[in-house]
Amino acid sequence: MDHIDRASVDLDALFRPERVAVIGASDAEGRPTTLNWRRVAGWAERVGAEAVPVHPRRAVVDGRTAYRSIEDVPGQVDVAIVLIGDVDSVLPGIAAKGVGFVVLFAAGYAETGPDGERRQAELVRSLRAAGVRALGPNTNMNLFEEFRTDLPGRPIALITQSGHQGRPVFQGQELGIRFSHWAPTGNEADLNAAHFVDYFAHEDDTGAIALYLEGFADGTAFRRAARAAARRGVPLVAVKVGRTELGRSWAMSHTGHLAGADDVASAVMRQYGIARVDGLDELLDTAALFARAGDPPHAGVCVYAISGGTSAHMADLLGAAGIDLPELSAETVTALRQWIPDYLRVSNPVDNGGHPVGDWRGRRILETILADPAVGILVVPITGAFPPMSDTLVADLVAVAETTDKPICVVWGSPSGTEDAYRRVLLGSQLPVFRTFGNCVAAIRALADHLDFRERAHELPVVPDPPPALAGPGRQLTELDAKRLLAAHGVPVSRDALCAGADEAARAIDDQGGPVVVKAVVDGLAHKSEHGLVRLGIADAAEGRAVVADFERIVADLPGRELAGVLVSEQVHGGVEMVVGIAPDPVFGPTVMLGVGGVAVEVYRDVSFRVPPFDRPEVHRMIDELTGSALLTGFRGAPPVDLEPLVDVVMAVQQLAADGVVTELDINPLIVLPDRVVAVDALASIPDPHENAGAVA
Amino acid sequence: MDHIDRASVDLDALFRPERVAVIGASDAEGRPTTLNWRRVAGWAERVGAEAVPVHPRRAVVDGRTAYRSIEDVPGQVDVAIVLIGDVDSVLPGIAAKGVGFVVLFAAGYAETGPDGERRQAELVRSLRAAGVRALGPNTNMNLFEEFRTDLPGRPIALITQSGHQGRPVFQGQELGIRFSHWAPTGNEADLNAAHFVDYFAHEDDTGAIALYLEGFADGTAFRRAARAAARRGVPLVAVKVGRTELGRSWAMSHTGHLAGADDVASAVMRQYGIARVDGLDELLDTAALFARAGDPPHAGVCVYAISGGTSAHMADLLGAAGIDLPELSAETVTALRQWIPDYLRVSNPVDNGGHPVGDWRGRRILETILADPAVGILVVPITGAFPPMSDTLVADLVAVAETTDKPICVVWGSPSGTEDAYRRVLLGSQLPVFRTFGNCVAAIRALADHLDFRERAHELPVVPDPPPALAGPGRQLTELDAKRLLAAHGVPVSRDALCAGADEAARAIDDQGGPVVVKAVVDGLAHKSEHGLVRLGIADAAEGRAVVADFERIVADLPGRELAGVLVSEQVHGGVEMVVGIAPDPVFGPTVMLGVGGVAVEVYRDVSFRVPPFDRPEVHRMIDELTGSALLTGFRGAPPVDLEPLVDVVMAVQQLAADGVVTELDINPLIVLPDRVVAVDALASIPDPHENAGAVA
Repeated sequence: MDHIDRASVDLDALFRPERVAVIGASDAEGRPTTLNWRRVAGWAERVGAEAVPVHPRRAVVDGRTAYRSIEDVPGQVDVAIVLIGDVDSVLPGIAAKGVGFVVLFAAGYAETGPDGERRQAELVRSLRAAGVRALGPNTNMNLFEEFRTDLPGRPIALITQSGHQGRPVFQGQELGIRFSHWAPTGNEADLNAAHFVDYFAHEDDTGAIALYLEGFADGTAFRRAARAAARRGVPLVAVKVGRTELGRSWAMSHTGHLAGADDVASAVMRQYGIARVDGLDELLDTAALFARAGDPPHAGVCVYAISGGTSAHMADLLGAAGIDLPELSAETVTALRQWIPDYLRVSNPVDNGGHPVGDWRGRRILETILADPAVGILVVPITGAFPPMSDTLVADLVAVAETTDKPICVVWGSPSGTEDAYRRVLLGSQLPVFRTFGNCVAAIRALADHLDFRERAHELPVVPDPPPALAGPGRQLTELDAKRLLAAHGVPVSRDALCAGADEAARAIDDQGGPVVVKAVVDGLAHKSEHGLVRLGIADAAEGRAVVADFERIVADLPGRELAGVLVSEQVHGGVEMVVGIAPDPVFGPTVMLGVGGVAVEVYRDVSFRVPPFDRPEVHRMIDELTGSALLTGFRGAPPVDLEPLVDVVMAVQQLAADGVVTELDINPLIVLPDRVVAVDALASIPDPHENAGAVA
Repeated sequence: MDHIDRASVDLDALFRPERVAVIGASDAEGRPTTLNWRRVAGWAERVGAEAVPVHPRRAVVDGRTAYRSIEDVPGQVDVAIVLIGDVDSVLPGIAAKGVGFVVLFAAGYAETGPDGERRQAELVRSLRAAGVRALGPNTNMNLFEEFRTDLPGRPIALITQSGHQGRPVFQGQELGIRFSHWAPTGNEADLNAAHFVDYFAHEDDTGAIALYLEGFADGTAFRRAARAAARRGVPLVAVKVGRTELGRSWAMSHTGHLAGADDVASAVMRQYGIARVDGLDELLDTAALFARAGDPPHAGVCVYAISGGTSAHMADLLGAAGIDLPELSAETVTALRQWIPDYLRVSNPVDNGGHPVGDWRGRRILETILADPAVGILVVPITGAFPPMSDTLVADLVAVAETTDKPICVVWGSPSGTEDAYRRVLLGSQLPVFRTFGNCVAAIRALADHLDFRERAHELPVVPDPPPALAGPGRQLTELDAKRLLAAHGVPVSRDALCAGADEAARAIDDQGGPVVVKAVVDGLAHKSEHGLVRLGIADAAEGRAVVADFERIVADLPGRELAGVLVSEQVHGGVEMVVGIAPDPVFGPTVMLGVGGVAVEVYRDVSFRVPPFDRPEVHRMIDELTGSALLTGFRGAPPVDLEPLVDVVMAVQQLAADGVVTELDINPLIVLPDRVVAVDALASIPDPHENAGAVA
């Protein structure tokens, strides 16, 4: 059950092969292929594989028997590593040999523009024909790096779409942070980040997966892999380039990916519990915290420092990030007061005033704080090196960490970072160590979100196959048809009467009783109100007739438009205007949006996105994300509204999106009343069979 | 002229004394007073002063003649440094000796709570009586630190309200960053941060002033000092603790300051061009960039890297921070194409693909980019150490920096930071060097803001004396009186008729012609609309009579309230609702607020604050700060409104605030129409003579 939902390729043979063939291996000094062959050979030795050189004109490479072609290599070959540029010339042999994986360093594919994209498409066809899975092209040697084996703790697995950008993360090993793998996915012509997320998540001891992403090769596979990781309890942290248009366009030209809109990418990461960070330093620090945090009971943070200024500053930044800083228990406070004078604060933050860290009291204070059930995480900012105090403090922290399951996060703030207490003691320990308050706060925010997410990770619905890609924008429905479709799918809509002309409209107004809304029906015309074609508060039949006459004049002035009728609609009083919609995302497919109506959505972009499928609690989280949800929960003393009818609508809209019934949708506004909701206007497009027929042909 | 506006105390005698007396100096090994005496003596030697020990029972301290009291010290004493706790016992002697400055380390004052606050108030009285200016109490030895004299460039002057929190900034010297002074202001009973800002800004070569603030002892003095620094072209960078309530309350108990509301503090910093940062690392990095940036022609940034991923990532983060990344000229692009292949991007960012940095081309590329007039600042992110490339690149950068006035900002991303290219070459140079993309982006954002601010710094108005503090909330005016007062001060208000009852209201409606707004006049009742006492769209006299009857019933049910009349008001159609107000800030005095009306101000907090006096362009900047200013500048195809009438109102309100005519004000809404503005409702309080009489007595 879990297995079929994996973005699953079994990569064991790639990471733990028995035999690898290195095509283009050389031992001529100074050649890149020599350097790369030797790196691969070194890696093979470390993983217990036999590395076999393949070279058309050499019998021996570095003292090993070389073969003219891969087909000549004796025995089963698990991985073919192609150091040469001419991939096409060796693929048939690789296929004939029945090799499972090929690693392609060759450049000149999608990363170079349209011609390269064509070459890459051809390459993909050849790979499929050969039945071989490929890493690359345009990948690099990072997979074969030497990983330190002397480091304890759960390791980080690293996946990067740019080898260069992964370097400072991988170098975390120099800070004592353990890494297990590095997958440099290159152009992702075949294997992409999702396959590696899935594989690493299923390794036994992965502490965290760190990703550097410039785009998503396959939105569905990525979500499946993220879901698998979530169910396995493996946290994901990602830098995703593309916060701005500039970055996005550039990322596209760099990797050949179609990067999705950043809002949707962010929403998907939130939905699947992936911590999104901006910098490579934050990527390393956050992944290391995840790998080392273990299983904290909760995200309540206690700040402890030897200076009131330091603890106030850290508490301020944590508070601004929305982190919970619980009061300590009365027992804890009483105990701490044995060692900390009255005028210093002990709950929470705890400021010891300096002196107690220099003697036996320092350790007692730490033990007392950590024993308090209100404390889930201890944060100890050490502003700078002051050896009489900081050395003792650091020693105590490392010792106490052995006695507790609660993570102890230390900030070592000295800018130089050459001090022994930092280099030797802290970096030699398993404590999560930060160099700045900012990175510590960001990582703790991510950990708190993860602890929250972890509770619901097992409820993430199976990610279905993506709906067929749209060949065009679809066919736009009239407002009345859109609302009929919505009503048929369970969305409450306003009472509407479609009237052929002034007489019918007058009768409808008499029937409904005023005031009503009168709207023009004009095929394919969006934003009717901007043309004066929506009139509110029409009191009676006479006023209605006058409005219809107005509409006739206005539409006559719109080239190519015709007044197909008028809609006499229920006027809904009061309530909060919301917007619910569906938009297609090129990467993640149909995306559901919930927003606060009016200027809130247009000016303040107070919107939340999710990609189907998601459950009802997720809709509540969408609502919570909106600043304007304050309007729903008892604004200015108004009674809070019942949120369930709103959740019903979002769930119904999700179904319309998932089933491909509607390709684009704006319910704007959806009026949320204290006990019900009403869609009073809607714009919808449905798939156009002509477009799709054309696409297939 | 400039001088009288300084928060001016001439601190020359404090920083460059000829003779200092150290009261409590000791040479008994292991005593803190011994350590401190020796530190002061060392500092005195460095600044060319004579340090004289004063001790009641010693004739000689460390081989120098000691005196029983300061009055016995021969000659003029510029500074008395009091190492002992009992300040009161030595103040009379200090006063008698005519000493200008006293430095007080003693603790147990405002930082310890109400008793300490009383002690501090007594101390201030004694100091005033003695005619001596004091640093402290509860200051520390940071003033007497050893500053490296081997570092070139303009130095940073550091001011901190917590000595401990200044340490990692001061340690920037270990990274080759020059510092000239460190003022640890302690409890700021007398001298406060403002005095040091002013003094350092008037030093000849101060490159930047870095502040760590927990509160403002004197808002007016701070603004005057900031203005003086602005006029001298000296940039200020500040961490101000108090982003959250918790931080603020804590900062209060720690320093005894009354910290102002954080929004106002942020606004004042923006108004006076102070870069606000969150972390001590950002404080150091941003101040260092300011000190080293020199005088860049403009803030257009070019990003240059040896990897497309790296440059895309940096460009993305800069773009998200609103930094301008201009296209390079056609000539530059043509020149760069000699060395960079076609498939790599060269404008802007510039990605050289790696290889060219290894040879002579690296330098040519740098020179070519820097010669482009579109480039004001060059940013070179170096993801990690890769010696064959990064070593050459770093050497080229240091060499090229000698030939240009444009700042070259380098990010050295290796987490370890032990590499020679970083430690020796980069830190040995005068390049601004960062360890993270984030800090580089934040510092460049601050520099861009500073370059913009610098253009207008000389136009900052003189900061007047603060208005007398309010003794109470003042007296609230009726809506009609508030609007009359506003009208008298040049704020356009809606046409209103005050009517005694239904008959008068009916006549007024006939006079004005409907529809009108009818509002109840009830003394001291705010938020009338929530009681149903504001009715829009009243069409005629008959409807008006019915409304008045309603009002009578409603008010009869409000305990203690009386219907004093009704207001028949012009109904204003359309337009954008804004809010203009005045609120008293405990630190900065009356503060002017501009916001977008309705849910925008209440839910989205779309508001901007300024402290008078400010000029008209500053009001335009307030408008620009509002997300909702989009509503004014042509929203959904509407014509942009004329902003000048809105600016007129804010300027008029500023005058009301500055003159103390109004103590609190809400014009809500001020309706902004395409060519005019109208205040349609207003709440105002004026000073209550009874309250203030009571306060004086």
